[in-house]
Amino acid sequence: MESVVQSLAVENNNKIVLLVCDGLGGLPLTPDGRTELESAATPNLDALAGISECGLHLPIDVGITPGSAPGHLALFGYEPVDYPIGRGVVAATGIGFPIHAGDVAVRLNFATRDERGNITDRRAGRIPTEQCAELCEVIGKASIPGVELFVKPVKDYRACVIFRGKELSDHVADTDTQKTGVPPLDPVPTSEKGKKTAQVAKEFVRQALELLKDRHPANAVLLRGFAELPHIPSLKDRFQLAPVALAVYPDYKGVSRLVGMDVIEDLSDLNAQMTMLKKAWADHTFFFVHHKYTDSKGEDGNFEAKVKEIEKVDNIIPEILKLKPDVLIVTGDHSTPAKMKSHSSHPVPFLIHAADIRPSGCASFGERECAKGGWGVLRTPHLIRLALAYSGKLMKFGA
Amino acid sequence: MESVVQSLAVENNNKIVLLVCDGLGGLPLTPDGRTELESAATPNLDALAGISECGLHLPIDVGITPGSAPGHLALFGYEPVDYPIGRGVVAATGIGFPIHAGDVAVRLNFATRDERGNITDRRAGRIPTEQCAELCEVIGKASIPGVELFVKPVKDYRACVIFRGKELSDHVADTDTQKTGVPPLDPVPTSEKGKKTAQVAKEFVRQALELLKDRHPANAVLLRGFAELPHIPSLKDRFQLAPVALAVYPDYKGVSRLVGMDVIEDLSDLNAQMTMLKKAWADHTFFFVHHKYTDSKGEDGNFEAKVKEIEKVDNIIPEILKLKPDVLIVTGDHSTPAKMKSHSSHPVPFLIHAADIRPSGCASFGERECAKGGWGVLRTPHLIRLALAYSGKLMKFGA
Repeated sequence: MESVVQSLAVENNNKIVLLVCDGLGGLPLTPDGRTELESAATPNLDALAGISECGLHLPIDVGITPGSAPGHLALFGYEPVDYPIGRGVVAATGIGFPIHAGDVAVRLNFATRDERGNITDRRAGRIPTEQCAELCEVIGKASIPGVELFVKPVKDYRACVIFRGKELSDHVADTDTQKTGVPPLDPVPTSEKGKKTAQVAKEFVRQALELLKDRHPANAVLLRGFAELPHIPSLKDRFQLAPVALAVYPDYKGVSRLVGMDVIEDLSDLNAQMTMLKKAWADHTFFFVHHKYTDSKGEDGNFEAKVKEIEKVDNIIPEILKLKPDVLIVTGDHSTPAKMKSHSSHPVPFLIHAADIRPSGCASFGERECAKGGWGVLRTPHLIRLALAYSGKLMKFGA
Repeated sequence: MESVVQSLAVENNNKIVLLVCDGLGGLPLTPDGRTELESAATPNLDALAGISECGLHLPIDVGITPGSAPGHLALFGYEPVDYPIGRGVVAATGIGFPIHAGDVAVRLNFATRDERGNITDRRAGRIPTEQCAELCEVIGKASIPGVELFVKPVKDYRACVIFRGKELSDHVADTDTQKTGVPPLDPVPTSEKGKKTAQVAKEFVRQALELLKDRHPANAVLLRGFAELPHIPSLKDRFQLAPVALAVYPDYKGVSRLVGMDVIEDLSDLNAQMTMLKKAWADHTFFFVHHKYTDSKGEDGNFEAKVKEIEKVDNIIPEILKLKPDVLIVTGDHSTPAKMKSHSSHPVPFLIHAADIRPSGCASFGERECAKGGWGVLRTPHLIRLALAYSGKLMKFGA
């Protein structure tokens, strides 16, 4: 069906806004209680739900809890299991590193080791980003014949290393044991294909330890998530969209870049995102607006704070509507119930508003109201098709 | 997706109870009437439905009526069309025969034939099980070079024969024409692979008829459902479960053994099942409790009797809840509407109760209330994923 959709996609100037409240879906704290979204005072979203099509969507499949990258890929119309994205690639694209096909990107954490080589702190005392950047330059001096390498800071003690060269592969296991009191593992290949890369990584770690030997607390490195760039066709190629991402957090910018979105940098909050949304309006047709803190508060287990974040999003709805988008979707990439303090497998509520729709007649925007909407539980990758259809971007199938 | 789920499954000690009322789904006798489940007085199930996720599930696919074995396989998380189970294997595993890979098991019915060899009674006057056992010993004396054979009684006139030897295959057609007044068919191969087995079976039938020649009314045998053991990965391998079956009837124990469940023998009724459930609690994580008589009464066309059987199941709900299962599913393996006196294709109501769920807010446990639950119509093999998710047995997909 993906190729059918691609063959039917046509370009026009109609505008689609995809507003993602990360981890939007929730759970009631007691069986007879309300979820975070059901509890929030959301007059704008409730009014919109009444004149929208509403439903629930499932990013991966029944019972599967999505990570952030697959959750977003699904919202962008991609089957997550067909496009696995490794941690290293999420990190590298998140900071805007121009990763190439064939590169191997790896998450690198600075850590602390004792004189026997055992890890004593997997986060090197959470060194600040500036120090991380300096240390990246230090270990970036490592030199391996036939391989170009780049070491780049991400945030705090987190960095990433990109290996570029011939016949590299991501078939290499993590060196991070996720434990303290033991030494890191050597990088070992997980298949024949990973042999050369494992050797390269081992030599890199050897040189990095030498270069860091007087740099307590950041005197060790841990490698996780060896990953190659997956081949992901762009939103332009698949759906004839001119997409732009308005996200604060690096990881979401990273996933957006992987599907060929323009990415607007240096956005600090929803106000800045709204300002830039207006500026980007004329030159794009697909606008991905991402709000992180609904998920963060859910992960913290702070029900009330998540409610407040939802209410902040409700506040910007009138501003978005003033732009008269042809299609507006409001939803999440997965559920993060405060009750569970984690992502969960529960379906995610959505509303889709456009001129030519069949309103579900939901009384408000909430999980249980959306469950009554005519769509039931949709697979998330299908959601974008509704947006394309309702903005006139999909031709008729057959005569 | 099955391999994704398998790769995400983790072991823990949380407990899942799957309570199956065989043939639970029903139909109203008149268009404005209630189904069996909707008619039953089920205060415990109704209260539970109010604080559970509810829905309907489809074991095979839209419009397909499931047999008992595929209905149960689907509940255990297996796509029934991927794991066809022949009648012979269901019979052999049902009586606890230790069938091996490569064995061919066949259902054998004792029958009556006249002097011309035509079948006059396909059930040999429904001889009692004791006589069946004696006759199994008689025809078990048949001897075929290079083939070991076992003839075992099942119930009444029903038995099974297992052929063990090299290069046997289940590619052999039934000898039972399902008619009287005609002779049975010879066993004929349905492909090249079945040639040897067809010859073995033909010789077995020849000797059996000789051994039974003075045994009126059971002086003939009919063979049905040549079947080899399918390769079914166990619930332990697929989902990291430690499963146990608490069923009264042999066929359900048979299907349970095929997916690697421990099977508790000599259970006479729901009381015995509850007693053994408590005893098995500490050492298992997945408990399959099976109640047969909802189906039996449906097959009899006895609407009121099926209602009573549902009410018996409602009575044991408090006992199950006292054990504090982490997840409790109550459902059926298919529908058996008394109105139709047979299995049917209609979706089957379910409820799933756990701590971290989003209650559907159903007013009672019934087909039409479940249809309003957020899940709509699920495929049955996905149901176990919800149980795994809600008991913390599935990791997150992707970074």
